[in-house]
Amino acid sequence: MTTQALSTVIDDLVLASRILADQGVLDSFGHVSVRHPGNPHRYFLARAMAPALVTAGDIMEFDLDSNPVDQRDRRVFLERFIHGQIYRARADVNAVIHSHSPTVIPFSVTQVPLKPIINTASFLVAGVPVFDVRDVGIVSGLLVANNALGQALATTLGNKHVALLRGHGDVVVGPTVQRAVLRAIYNLVNARLLATALSFNSPITYISADEAQEPVRLDDAWEILKRKTMGT
Amino acid sequence: MTTQALSTVIDDLVLASRILADQGVLDSFGHVSVRHPGNPHRYFLARAMAPALVTAGDIMEFDLDSNPVDQRDRRVFLERFIHGQIYRARADVNAVIHSHSPTVIPFSVTQVPLKPIINTASFLVAGVPVFDVRDVGIVSGLLVANNALGQALATTLGNKHVALLRGHGDVVVGPTVQRAVLRAIYNLVNARLLATALSFNSPITYISADEAQEPVRLDDAWEILKRKTMGT
Amino acid sequence: MTTQALSTVIDDLVLASRILADQGVLDSFGHVSVRHPGNPHRYFLARAMAPALVTAGDIMEFDLDSNPVDQRDRRVFLERFIHGQIYRARADVNAVIHSHSPTVIPFSVTQVPLKPIINTASFLVAGVPVFDVRDVGIVSGLLVANNALGQALATTLGNKHVALLRGHGDVVVGPTVQRAVLRAIYNLVNARLLATALSFNSPITYISADEAQEPVRLDDAWEILKRKTMGT
Amino acid sequence: MTTQALSTVIDDLVLASRILADQGVLDSFGHVSVRHPGNPHRYFLARAMAPALVTAGDIMEFDLDSNPVDQRDRRVFLERFIHGQIYRARADVNAVIHSHSPTVIPFSVTQVPLKPIINTASFLVAGVPVFDVRDVGIVSGLLVANNALGQALATTLGNKHVALLRGHGDVVVGPTVQRAVLRAIYNLVNARLLATALSFNSPITYISADEAQEPVRLDDAWEILKRKTMGT
Repeated sequence: MTTQALSTVIDDLVLASRILADQGVLDSFGHVSVRHPGNPHRYFLARAMAPALVTAGDIMEFDLDSNPVDQRDRRVFLERFIHGQIYRARADVNAVIHSHSPTVIPFSVTQVPLKPIINTASFLVAGVPVFDVRDVGIVSGLLVANNALGQALATTLGNKHVALLRGHGDVVVGPTVQRAVLRAIYNLVNARLLATALSFNSPITYISADEAQEPVRLDDAWEILKRKTMGT
Repeated sequence: MTTQALSTVIDDLVLASRILADQGVLDSFGHVSVRHPGNPHRYFLARAMAPALVTAGDIMEFDLDSNPVDQRDRRVFLERFIHGQIYRARADVNAVIHSHSPTVIPFSVTQVPLKPIINTASFLVAGVPVFDVRDVGIVSGLLVANNALGQALATTLGNKHVALLRGHGDVVVGPTVQRAVLRAIYNLVNARLLATALSFNSPITYISADEAQEPVRLDDAWEILKRKTMGT
Repeated sequence: MTTQALSTVIDDLVLASRILADQGVLDSFGHVSVRHPGNPHRYFLARAMAPALVTAGDIMEFDLDSNPVDQRDRRVFLERFIHGQIYRARADVNAVIHSHSPTVIPFSVTQVPLKPIINTASFLVAGVPVFDVRDVGIVSGLLVANNALGQALATTLGNKHVALLRGHGDVVVGPTVQRAVLRAIYNLVNARLLATALSFNSPITYISADEAQEPVRLDDAWEILKRKTMGT
Repeated sequence: MTTQALSTVIDDLVLASRILADQGVLDSFGHVSVRHPGNPHRYFLARAMAPALVTAGDIMEFDLDSNPVDQRDRRVFLERFIHGQIYRARADVNAVIHSHSPTVIPFSVTQVPLKPIINTASFLVAGVPVFDVRDVGIVSGLLVANNALGQALATTLGNKHVALLRGHGDVVVGPTVQRAVLRAIYNLVNARLLATALSFNSPITYISADEAQEPVRLDDAWEILKRKTMGT
């Protein structure tokens, strides 16, 4: 693992944070992490701050119990346990996004399932479980603020790509940060459109499992989003 | 009460005004106040102006009858009586926000109660009364433009954190300006999401009283919003 | 009529155009005019251009048949006839706004009346007629592109403050440009909120005629909007 | 065909791309093309990039099989086949816009037809067919990523001005790039308003075929949008 390779990973994480803020996935809160490419028992996550303002200097390293490796005087996100426990449970996952995206929340507090209607959200055909802290015996607060809750969430997520957190937000995962970012963006777009389609009271044609196909040309999409976010 | 301590209070009030404008809680109108930390019979409020533009030099001091202590040639908000009367009735309240937030208004003119579906709006489990000037014998105008109306509104608010004003907006209070600002922000987010959830015509899972818990880590949230609003 | 007085009128018209664009009332199209304060048979309107970019040098003078007094090579709005015919029919009106505001259009193509639910839209208690060019024997096009159509629209408007144009937009009038601008802003806010309230399928409490009262303190509101739009 | 004439065409294409981004028709993806004015078997389209950032140097030339004439190391859009096949099928079409406009998608996955309610979307009276790749025997993916699919889409479009792509977006065509741009803008506005009108559960008055009339004064509209987008 060269310093150069690590630097690229950090730069992509910073860019992911800014793209997600620019695209409205992350509001002033929410966070995105990547697994350490040289050590699968570690992950990178910004210190507690607004996603749109993250720079490389704000990135911290955590172990899978979500203890900071070198905290110094930096504040850390209360819900970092989401990241650590998902990396522990899912060897195929190298990037985790936790957002408080308003758009998906109505699907977490009603009986209406979040299913894909747009091609770019095809990954949702795998299903979108809803995590409710009450189901794991928690009666106060909805935050995933310790390892037990993080583990319970990882169990609910299973082998899916997205899980909703009841009245709270969602978690989106991917094999790369680029893939996770695109999934998070299109998850929101799909939720917004599905809400409108539902209001029509007309039968809905969902994307079926056999036609589901994640967008190819990930590199192009990432490059376009990068230039858009950076204005270059 | 040192000059320095007072200056911090004023600075936080200015920041609150700008955060609320940046987050879309306050449009060109609406206002936020704080109780004078050294004199519970006084409060601070900007002169009549757009919230996004408030600076420390725009802050004025009022008594609890909402008379300006030193008006000079400055215009004052017509509805300042909301602030004075709530400070008089509620010793636990040190910050008051009055907004014309469009998002909550549909809940003030229909029979649909504003209840929490997101964890960050848990404070709404206390209930959200609706104030209607007609209920207090006013037949012309809906503004809270004198002390009698301000007092009636304070009575409707009771010991709650939020009251809606029919066809007009809302009032959000808190023990600190930081807490009141976060409540005002999440009150809006919750109202917007609840409106969408209601459109699904599917049973809704509200936040229950026993799981209600206001977000911890207020300092972090305030710092994040501060940096976001100030772009630093 | 001094040059100075005329200059103030023009400056307020320019400001009105920019405020309406800033507040989202006017998109890239739409226009606002004022009656000539020194000659009731003339009015001022910008040449055909985006409202957000209007300057004093773009203002043209028209007679009540909507002929430009001094056109030179400047393009004029196709629907200027709306302005001329309303000034002719309504001696009490000194400002006219024609917008293609999307928000009100659903009320022009359904049977749902546009009625006030917010105090700041109290002026709507007078009623909001819908103008349909088909009702006046026009079968092609929906634009008010000549004096006959302008006159028919003025007849539909009657003594009201707002008329909808079916599938097209609306017209808002006032005794001053400041009053017309505030009405246009709150007409939109009210329409947006009413659409949401309607989606709740719950009885709606409209503003009643006896409690209707237009906002006092117009000067304050104008000053706040001015500073907001100009960023000062 | 002078160099100067070609340069004007390219400049208008660049401007179209930026106007469509500014107006929210094109998100970070989507594309607009024009037929080569000097060779009907060629068309111009930007290399794969965000529409808001396109400059004249980014424009590439393609044949009607959508092979780049001079690719060099530039990435090309995967769905360029849409453009080539429509130019081949429709001699009257000189501009094609493919967007992933969220607003129209609910109409592509429900049984609710996209019909015009606003005058500026009158061109929709011709009808808006929905293209579904499953109808042409494709079971995986929804993208129009080859000539066979492009041709099938062109067949579905027929002699209409707009076709929806199920769960994907739409295609808008016109005799000039200016006309196509205006159609794309008003197609979205109409879809958004129709969605709101549908939520009222009240009969809707659509624009009828005999009153349909596309806006005159195209030059004015283009000039206004140009100045708005360029901020001049």
